[in-house]
Amino acid sequence: MGDRRILILAEGRFGVLDAKTATCVIRYAADEVVGVLDSVTAGQTTDQVLGFGPALPIVATLEEGLALSPDTLLIGVAPRGGLLPDEWRTLIAAALEAGLTVASGLHTFLGDDPDLVAIAARSGGQIIDLRRVPDDLPVASRRADEVDATVVLTVGTDCNVGKMTATMELTLAARRMGHSAVFVPTGQTGLFLDGRGLAIDRVIADFIAGAAEMMVLDNAPGNDFVFVEGQGSLLHPGYSGVALGLLHGSMPDAQVLVHSPTRELSLNDEIEIEPVPEWIELHERMAAYLKPAPVTGIAINGWDLDESEARAWGERIEAEAGRVAVDPVKFGAERLIEAIVASQAATTAERR
Amino acid sequence: MGDRRILILAEGRFGVLDAKTATCVIRYAADEVVGVLDSVTAGQTTDQVLGFGPALPIVATLEEGLALSPDTLLIGVAPRGGLLPDEWRTLIAAALEAGLTVASGLHTFLGDDPDLVAIAARSGGQIIDLRRVPDDLPVASRRADEVDATVVLTVGTDCNVGKMTATMELTLAARRMGHSAVFVPTGQTGLFLDGRGLAIDRVIADFIAGAAEMMVLDNAPGNDFVFVEGQGSLLHPGYSGVALGLLHGSMPDAQVLVHSPTRELSLNDEIEIEPVPEWIELHERMAAYLKPAPVTGIAINGWDLDESEARAWGERIEAEAGRVAVDPVKFGAERLIEAIVASQAATTAERR
Repeated sequence: MGDRRILILAEGRFGVLDAKTATCVIRYAADEVVGVLDSVTAGQTTDQVLGFGPALPIVATLEEGLALSPDTLLIGVAPRGGLLPDEWRTLIAAALEAGLTVASGLHTFLGDDPDLVAIAARSGGQIIDLRRVPDDLPVASRRADEVDATVVLTVGTDCNVGKMTATMELTLAARRMGHSAVFVPTGQTGLFLDGRGLAIDRVIADFIAGAAEMMVLDNAPGNDFVFVEGQGSLLHPGYSGVALGLLHGSMPDAQVLVHSPTRELSLNDEIEIEPVPEWIELHERMAAYLKPAPVTGIAINGWDLDESEARAWGERIEAEAGRVAVDPVKFGAERLIEAIVASQAATTAERR
Repeated sequence: MGDRRILILAEGRFGVLDAKTATCVIRYAADEVVGVLDSVTAGQTTDQVLGFGPALPIVATLEEGLALSPDTLLIGVAPRGGLLPDEWRTLIAAALEAGLTVASGLHTFLGDDPDLVAIAARSGGQIIDLRRVPDDLPVASRRADEVDATVVLTVGTDCNVGKMTATMELTLAARRMGHSAVFVPTGQTGLFLDGRGLAIDRVIADFIAGAAEMMVLDNAPGNDFVFVEGQGSLLHPGYSGVALGLLHGSMPDAQVLVHSPTRELSLNDEIEIEPVPEWIELHERMAAYLKPAPVTGIAINGWDLDESEARAWGERIEAEAGRVAVDPVKFGAERLIEAIVASQAATTAERR
């Protein structure tokens, strides 16, 4: 993809579920990654920890990391609430001192820290706050409904369930099938990978849907498909507002539900996760008040499943939910795209 | 209530629906209001325009307004998106120049405008940005469920439908009935009237529910009732995220649905408003995933109804929805409080 030389900071968390930025960047931009900084798994290589991808070095200290000649330090862990842990500040300061670009998706903006800014100014280092959003966003008014492209929103049965990955796989599959398709990131990982889009969870509450609407309007022209990365979940105690705003602002034509079949309790709050058919019905209902958007398929998050387990879960969920269900990382998202196309064709036929 | 001397800026909009701040401040704090600035209705008195309250002067210019010896200029109109119209900037500058406190609920912070800040510093005037929120808010985690007080959230069948007014009337009725009750404002008008609370629509999206949770935890101790002012509506294209975050963060014991029976299309987007029973079912369902919160009654917004019309609508909605329905401004919210108490008693009995 690009030509950056990225060192990923995943201190103490590499290979753990909440180091999702680190994991996703290695999955989709490994050729740009020079190594990972994590004193816990240091000495191993990234493929040993993750079970996929190339064998990139894991180092214990920034000094060892700098020996890999990175030009970018990426904060690859997303702590709850997005605040900057104190112990990282020193490390970030040292990376800037060494002239690196530091890219951060934290809510705490590095660029608002006068000390870090001064160091960067002195050394020629740069600060990229991925979550910084424009301050002239609109209030949504259903304009995303006007685009010609087929807009697809990924939604989830929990937060941190693989919506970014599913969105990326849908985009790649659509392109493999000959469609023009754009990936619209709404979270820090996608933003780092792709550049376009904005961090929807950082937007002022009144403008969540407006930001989503704007992103759809900006990205739709000239594309067959717009794949919007979902955030949170409609039933997440902390993030449900973001999820609903994104749904009502982006006005998708179809929704793809991302689900981890082995996850019985939600990650942050340990709430029992509702059955898939309930999620489908809920999402279709909440969309339909403004615009019908069938849940055309389920993207299975199979990070903890082997191929035969993932296939078995797919069959089970298809039977239960009456929708295509596939692990897009293992098997590609082609069947999910086919289901979207079929659903759109049916809708168009009905309208005639 | 307080001892301010308030001049309300409602230029071009006084008596119109979106001048709700002006209307509500006159309804609940008329003794603090010296007059209204609106060149369109100037020459009349406020009671002639609003149909209630004392006869306060309406003036056409700031100069005439200053002759009423105000100490505070309140921006009493909420334009869509909350931006500062250019033509008001000059007027605000002049008010600050005259040493007034200027209170604003706009998204555009007056305190971020160097020119206005400089004028205030010179004249001794003050700027109060009601929508400014703390930047250390938490992510919600269902802690609002722990409080002993009965938490009541007002929810609405549209934005700008009277949730602030209903919340205030519920609080006043509960107090008249001998309960200790606190009003938790979440919008600029309530904040100006009361001081506590915060502008939930201004919060960064990740913290909507967290802010609601914090407000409930802060205000519950020592009170029988906490009345949380709702915002937006679950089906509003622009503001549904705020509404859902507020519901999931405040974890109410009961919801009161605010409804304008004559409003057939939603204000901003002209979407057909769903029937009341649909709203009740939707709200009860969205709450129940985290905690059951029956819609115990409907607060009728009867601003355009006379007493007999409001009573007739109440009877009709009660029959249709099977819930108490009353215009709390005309008839008091006592019956709505009784319904909440009865519902809570039934829940407690069931648990035993």
